[in-house]
Amino acid sequence: MRNLSLLTDLYELTMIYGYHKYGMADRTAVFDLFFRGTDELSYAVVAGLEQAIDYVKNIRFEEEDIAYLRSLNLFDESFLDKLKSFRFSGDIYAMPEGSIVYPYEPLLTVKAPIFEAQLMETTLLTLINHQTLIATKASKIVGETTAGVMEFGLRRAQGPDAGIYGARAAMIVGCIGTSNVLAGKMFDVPVSGTHAHSWVMSFPSELDAFRAYAKLFPDSCLLLVDTYDVLKSGLPNAIKVFNELKAAGHKPLGIRIDSGDLAYLTKEARRILDEAGFTDAKICASGDIDEYVLQSLNAQGAQIDSYGIGTKLITSYSMPALGGVYKLAAIEDDQGVLQPKLKISNTMEKITNPGLKKVVRFYDNVTGKAIADLIMLRDEPNPDGEPYTIFDPVETWKQKTVVDYHVRELMVPIFEKGELVYDLPTLPQIKAHYQASIDKMWEQYRRITKPHIYKVDLSQKLYDLKVKLLNQEK
Amino acid sequence: MRNLSLLTDLYELTMIYGYHKYGMADRTAVFDLFFRGTDELSYAVVAGLEQAIDYVKNIRFEEEDIAYLRSLNLFDESFLDKLKSFRFSGDIYAMPEGSIVYPYEPLLTVKAPIFEAQLMETTLLTLINHQTLIATKASKIVGETTAGVMEFGLRRAQGPDAGIYGARAAMIVGCIGTSNVLAGKMFDVPVSGTHAHSWVMSFPSELDAFRAYAKLFPDSCLLLVDTYDVLKSGLPNAIKVFNELKAAGHKPLGIRIDSGDLAYLTKEARRILDEAGFTDAKICASGDIDEYVLQSLNAQGAQIDSYGIGTKLITSYSMPALGGVYKLAAIEDDQGVLQPKLKISNTMEKITNPGLKKVVRFYDNVTGKAIADLIMLRDEPNPDGEPYTIFDPVETWKQKTVVDYHVRELMVPIFEKGELVYDLPTLPQIKAHYQASIDKMWEQYRRITKPHIYKVDLSQKLYDLKVKLLNQEK
Repeated sequence: MRNLSLLTDLYELTMIYGYHKYGMADRTAVFDLFFRGTDELSYAVVAGLEQAIDYVKNIRFEEEDIAYLRSLNLFDESFLDKLKSFRFSGDIYAMPEGSIVYPYEPLLTVKAPIFEAQLMETTLLTLINHQTLIATKASKIVGETTAGVMEFGLRRAQGPDAGIYGARAAMIVGCIGTSNVLAGKMFDVPVSGTHAHSWVMSFPSELDAFRAYAKLFPDSCLLLVDTYDVLKSGLPNAIKVFNELKAAGHKPLGIRIDSGDLAYLTKEARRILDEAGFTDAKICASGDIDEYVLQSLNAQGAQIDSYGIGTKLITSYSMPALGGVYKLAAIEDDQGVLQPKLKISNTMEKITNPGLKKVVRFYDNVTGKAIADLIMLRDEPNPDGEPYTIFDPVETWKQKTVVDYHVRELMVPIFEKGELVYDLPTLPQIKAHYQASIDKMWEQYRRITKPHIYKVDLSQKLYDLKVKLLNQEK
Repeated sequence: MRNLSLLTDLYELTMIYGYHKYGMADRTAVFDLFFRGTDELSYAVVAGLEQAIDYVKNIRFEEEDIAYLRSLNLFDESFLDKLKSFRFSGDIYAMPEGSIVYPYEPLLTVKAPIFEAQLMETTLLTLINHQTLIATKASKIVGETTAGVMEFGLRRAQGPDAGIYGARAAMIVGCIGTSNVLAGKMFDVPVSGTHAHSWVMSFPSELDAFRAYAKLFPDSCLLLVDTYDVLKSGLPNAIKVFNELKAAGHKPLGIRIDSGDLAYLTKEARRILDEAGFTDAKICASGDIDEYVLQSLNAQGAQIDSYGIGTKLITSYSMPALGGVYKLAAIEDDQGVLQPKLKISNTMEKITNPGLKKVVRFYDNVTGKAIADLIMLRDEPNPDGEPYTIFDPVETWKQKTVVDYHVRELMVPIFEKGELVYDLPTLPQIKAHYQASIDKMWEQYRRITKPHIYKVDLSQKLYDLKVKLLNQEK
């Protein structure tokens, strides 16, 4: 575990220095971590909480960190002393990893002395923005195919962490393996990979290269057939070697195609493999694939059993940042009263929701599917089964009354008074939670082209509070 | 220094296992790391070499790594033993960080036993792809403004490494500071940052918040004025506080605007600050800025002294992966002769250049500017000042004869027989090398919209070799 305590924006330190100097350091503050919706971001999959928890548990300013901060000539010794003994003492609520979260819903809330809550802003955002981004992208990719998806992006990841934790995020949403060996070791997930074009080029001929590879891994022989020409060279050579393997009592695994017209080539390859008697041989495709390419390949009837997906997944190429923010929702005044706060803006969507909140999800008792979410103040009772009318928070003429439902709270306690009270789930448990959550989501909210917008309402009490504060600010 | 030895794609290991089993492990191979051009990628700025060198020097498979690899049931003990004693023993040539590199030019070449050269593929790509990508994006951003640019992207970076090494890459190309404290400490570069909206919201009023901040940092007071309303509230309050600072003998630094119409607001703010006598007060702008927004702000006459640039820079938002590749260019045959290799493709641009190569740059003796580059075989003599005719390697009817020039080789020896022979430059030296390199680049090759394509030719000998190998492959 690296010490990430200094991995923060300088202004977090200048601000908490101010809170310290003005005797405000111990005032309780509430910050919400959430993201705003876009056309491409109608839902997200929470990820990165485990790393965020590690960070919070381990914030320690070492002597050399303090010496560095001293060298900036911004801070006094009383502040540096306070940093030296920093330990998180507050509460954190969060949605478990693998949860489906919608725009504007807090996915993590920190309630702590402002000195602590403000310090952690940047690092919590970095960790959760990244993994949530990649889990969301991978969820879309995995959602567009019934074939297995392997994460192959390490070489195009934005640095080692992006490769490692991007692979982790991809596994949460159902990728079946990763090419990344370190991620395999760290997270105990399947690693996969066979050989590259350079293997083929290192032998006198493609056939020699295939034979050598087959001899090496006779029971898991998957051959990359596009080094020269898939149909004229790669596939005939692969079939020659598969016949040799078969004669020796082994079952070949299949082929991989990394370039060219994947729809045409895989259909031809399937036909040729079948005709040669290798109906069980798998066809793996790779090369610049994303969720839209998957749709197109499906529509063309491409014959693909598994995908290796690299650049487009590991960087979330079409939307390489989540844009999550961490906004003040309440702060204790000089009378010791926690005052809800909002940040105003010219656009309704950018006005934040005040107070300490929770999120509940309504599920239909008949279908089991999620119907809508409600952001409420934490001290409100949850809806109890009585008919409940949900409004669109901006277009309030859009409403819907739900009956025969049950609700679940989506955020759980993670830290209480600085103590970790959350049993960290294993990766298989996180995957199972994701699967259960996505299975309860109607397809129309999930589709990649013009998804229907899932309803997220504010409780009447929260809405009234918001309007009251807005009117005060005017 | 983290151990990145397992940070690799599994297929690197399965391949070198094969080379080991077939007695080919010690055959010398040559791999080139380069990228292909796109409309947005007409040049790049080399970065990440220092981290790549650290990686190569420190490849060590620890007991737990070996135990993990053993658990995969893919490898035998003789291979695991060989990994245990892994030490890089080959040669590496590379362009120094801060160099300008064009598509298809090797920016790093490994000549080593294939066991070693193949193993390092993924990690070298991850490290160099990432930093080169960010340095290139930042170079475009910095190139579009005479104002100072600060790197503010940590919270939107794709994980901690992306934030840390992205900040490093940004500093190489002339960013004047970063918000990232850990990057500041690690690379000894200026850190900057003042306060956020939450600071303003934590006080009873904006004026109280500004006064408190001014008291804290009276000689470096930069106030964020868009929490409520820039012109009606933020700026008048800032001027009030600036007058108080002035009366107390301090000079205010200026204001920051993070939202709204930056062109209109900064022009108004400049006028109002000037009228109030604060002609020296700086205006800093931030919020979703990239090189195209900079062009637009310039065209509108926005009054901005410095920028804080986050998401768009730290993720290279418009192109979040470089797409660098690492391709086999030669391998020793079973007679001990190093045989040049190329990877064929249907598209001319995707056919690789064979053999152990170097890159030389022609400079005009009158202007000092770079005219064209030449990729040559390493054992060819450099052009010596005699008139030299350069062809476009694809559209060969485009040619140009250069006279009155000198040339420089762009790649330098980094490792020789496993020994590091390169004196690692300091970050200021790397910045100076970048500045000297970009100053020698004509503006038309650098512009962000439809840049002129810089000529990169192959020497006649390399071209002939390529054609000969192509004809053999047919």
